[in-house]
This record gives sequence, C-alpha cells and structure tokens, in this order.
Amino acid sequence: MKAGRRRFHEIYVIREKTAPRLEPILELAAKQGIPVQMVSRSRLGAISGTDLHQGIGASVSPYPLVELSHILSGPEKALPDKYFLIMDSVEDPQNLGALIRTALCAGTSGIIVPKDRAASPTPASSKASAGALEHAHVTMVTNLVSTIQTLKKYGIWIVGTDMKARESIFSTNLPFPAAIVIGSEVKGIRPLVKKNCDLLVSIPQCGPVSSLNASAAGAVILYEVFRQHRNHKKHS
Amino acid sequence: MKAGRRRFHEIYVIREKTAPRLEPILELAAKQGIPVQMVSRSRLGAISGTDLHQGIGASVSPYPLVELSHILSGPEKALPDKYFLIMDSVEDPQNLGALIRTALCAGTSGIIVPKDRAASPTPASSKASAGALEHAHVTMVTNLVSTIQTLKKYGIWIVGTDMKARESIFSTNLPFPAAIVIGSEVKGIRPLVKKNCDLLVSIPQCGPVSSLNASAAGAVILYEVFRQHRNHKKHS
Repeated sequence: MKAGRRRFHEIYVIREKTAPRLEPILELAAKQGIPVQMVSRSRLGAISGTDLHQGIGASVSPYPLVELSHILSGPEKALPDKYFLIMDSVEDPQNLGALIRTALCAGTSGIIVPKDRAASPTPASSKASAGALEHAHVTMVTNLVSTIQTLKKYGIWIVGTDMKARESIFSTNLPFPAAIVIGSEVKGIRPLVKKNCDLLVSIPQCGPVSSLNASAAGAVILYEVFRQHRNHKKHS
Repeated sequence: MKAGRRRFHEIYVIREKTAPRLEPILELAAKQGIPVQMVSRSRLGAISGTDLHQGIGASVSPYPLVELSHILSGPEKALPDKYFLIMDSVEDPQNLGALIRTALCAGTSGIIVPKDRAASPTPASSKASAGALEHAHVTMVTNLVSTIQTLKKYGIWIVGTDMKARESIFSTNLPFPAAIVIGSEVKGIRPLVKKNCDLLVSIPQCGPVSSLNASAAGAVILYEVFRQHRNHKKHS
C-alpha cells in the first residue's frame, strides 16, 4: 500500500483477532477508501491459497512489471551510477523474494528475470521479500541473451557469478555500470548466458562444507558490488 | 558422519523409497558398522519430531560443544589470523544454523553463544546449517559479558553490529584479531553486551524498505570481515 503501485480491491482480515500490528494497515486502508472485509481464518486461507497469511490479505491488481527501456531510462550520465541484477533461472519464489529484498537494500536500480524457467513475482515472493518486491523495478524478458546484448550496447558490463570462477569478486575491480548475473541454486548460470558474460567472479569459501546458500551468496555479491561502486564513484 | 565428531547409535531410513542420494550415506554407515533400520515414514516423523526429515534420520550422541579455552587455544602467534562470531540472543534455530553455515564458509574460527535466551545447537539448526554445525567449533557460555572481558584480555577486539551505528562496516578498518557480535533478529545486541563492544558498525542500506534479513545481514558482515582480514594479512 505504501509503494502505491497496485490497486487494492479489497482487504481481508480474520475475525478472531485484530492484532495491534494490523491497526496502522487498517487506518491506511480507511484513508484510501479500500473496503475491508472480516473473514474466518479458513476463508482467508482459501482466498490466499496459503495458511501462512498472518491474519491479513488483499485482492490487488497484478504485479506492475516494467519494460527494460524503463529500467535503462533516465539521463545518460546517470547510467554509470547504476547497477542491475539479472536472475537467471532462480526457480524458488522464496529465493526470488529474498534476493529482491537484498538487492533493494544494496541499491540495485533494476532487476531482470527471464520469462521461462524462473520464478515470477508471485504473492509468495512478495511476502518473502518483506514488501521489497512492491518497490522494486522488475522486468521479465523472453530472451535473456538478447537482453544482455542490448545492455552491452548501453555500455553495461555483464558480471556473472560462478562458484567455480577463478577470479574472486574481492580481488576483481568490478567495471561500472554493471549488471550482475546470479544463477539458479543448483545449476548456476545457464551455459549460453555464461558465455555472454564479460567476466565471471566467485565468492571464496573456506572450510569443509563450502556452500553458501543462495540468499547468503546473493547478499555477499550484491554488497561487494555496492562497496566497490561507492569507491568507484569516490575516485572518478 | 564425515565430521566424525558424534557417535552414531543407529540410522533410520524410510521403507518406501531409498533415494539414490541416500546410497553414499548407507555405504559409509556400513563401512563404519552403524546399524541401519528400515522404518515407515510416520515412524521416522515420530522419531525425529518433524515431517521434514528427507527420508533419513539417526540417533546420535549429543552435540559436541567445545570449551572457550579450546576456541582460544593454539600458538599465540596464530591468534591474529583468527576471527570469531558471537551470537547474542539469536533465538531462531533456523537463523542460528544459517549463520553458522555462512560463518564456516567465511573462515570463522569459533562461535560463541550464550546459554540463556538463545537457540542452542539443536537438530533443527544442524539441518538448517546444511551440516556446517557438525564441523563448527561452538561454545556456550553462561555470562557473555564476562566472556567478552576474557576475549579482550587475549587482545581480541569486540566488534558489535548495530543497524543504527554511525560507522559503516565498509568505511571502518576492522582491527584483528576480532570477535564479531550479531544480535537477535528483532532486538539486536543486548544493551550491556553492546556497552562492552570496542566499536559498533552498521551495514549501509538503501531504498524504501531498508531491512536486510538476519541471514543476509550476517553474510554481508562475515564476508566483509573475511575481505578485510585477507587485506590485513597481506599488508602486515
């Protein structure tokens, strides 16, 4: 509701308890003239398709995807100040949501997701993002490789992350503007997408287990991009 | 089993399916002479106390906690090469497990957890750590403040993380050897623990949502410690 990008048709609150934490939401709903319906817990479960609804739900307009041109728009000289996230085949909506939340915190300007073989911005991923999805600029593209070629024409460097890459992200001077490619939890970046990356970097891992989970790996990468980008701006 | 620190009394496998991924485990069990019992899915649920058992379980000896002295042991000149993680009041076993997994990947030498008001190394946190807990050196202490004072006597710097701290972790030259303090998801580090930190650092956050989840924040912090520690070693 605060993001202000979706139309709220109706809000559903469970009858049994109106927790104090819901009050600010209901006040905002009243202010915006959104109808509120009291429902049973099981009815809300049926409407939302999940039991993990925390006592509130809403019927809203579809997720406002943006066009690639929107992500790339703005004055040309602002582009070097930007970095983007490409999620190649991230299949788990929870991971998609968690990564979008981190990407927003780390200052990513736009997020690119392929239409096929990837999670899309569902209610589950919105919830997993703790609302970040509602503020993010997400575009879904049919052909990720051709999108990468378009980004390159704009002077954007494509930085792939690959746990087997020889170069560590910490010892690489990342080029900007950049689009960071993160692959699926299990298979990583698809071969053809990887082939179109300008460079590949890894996260060094110590110890006997050596496998960060997707959300931790994404956080390390996105904040190293943030850190290097800030230094890059300071010295340019 | 690979970590070799627990005694395995018995392994339980569900009768319905022996997935190929279980075979290497059963081979290792045979080699080590650990009895394997076929059970029903519901019986394994009852034994393990969860339905999320992935078809296999084991009865094992308790988690091998270590003493603080063990974490600090070794040649004195090795200490500057170490960094530790203190988890103050991390209550969720899933978060505990996820953070331990990341800490191990980031090269942390030992993990300190208070006995009270914190999750302990349960089967749930072991599973959430994807096995990392079985390799980690974890000590549980009665009085975290007095432990911090002991660490200081060893020349270890106490670095607290606090989302409200003025200094960003990226613009702070972290001192080594260091113990990094991470607080609970909701309340952060307890006031008395915070007061005993040598410095407090935050993660800069952009955008309208500005709240990393505990696992992402931990990953950013632990890998920034890793990065700075590597540079520190290079220049000393």
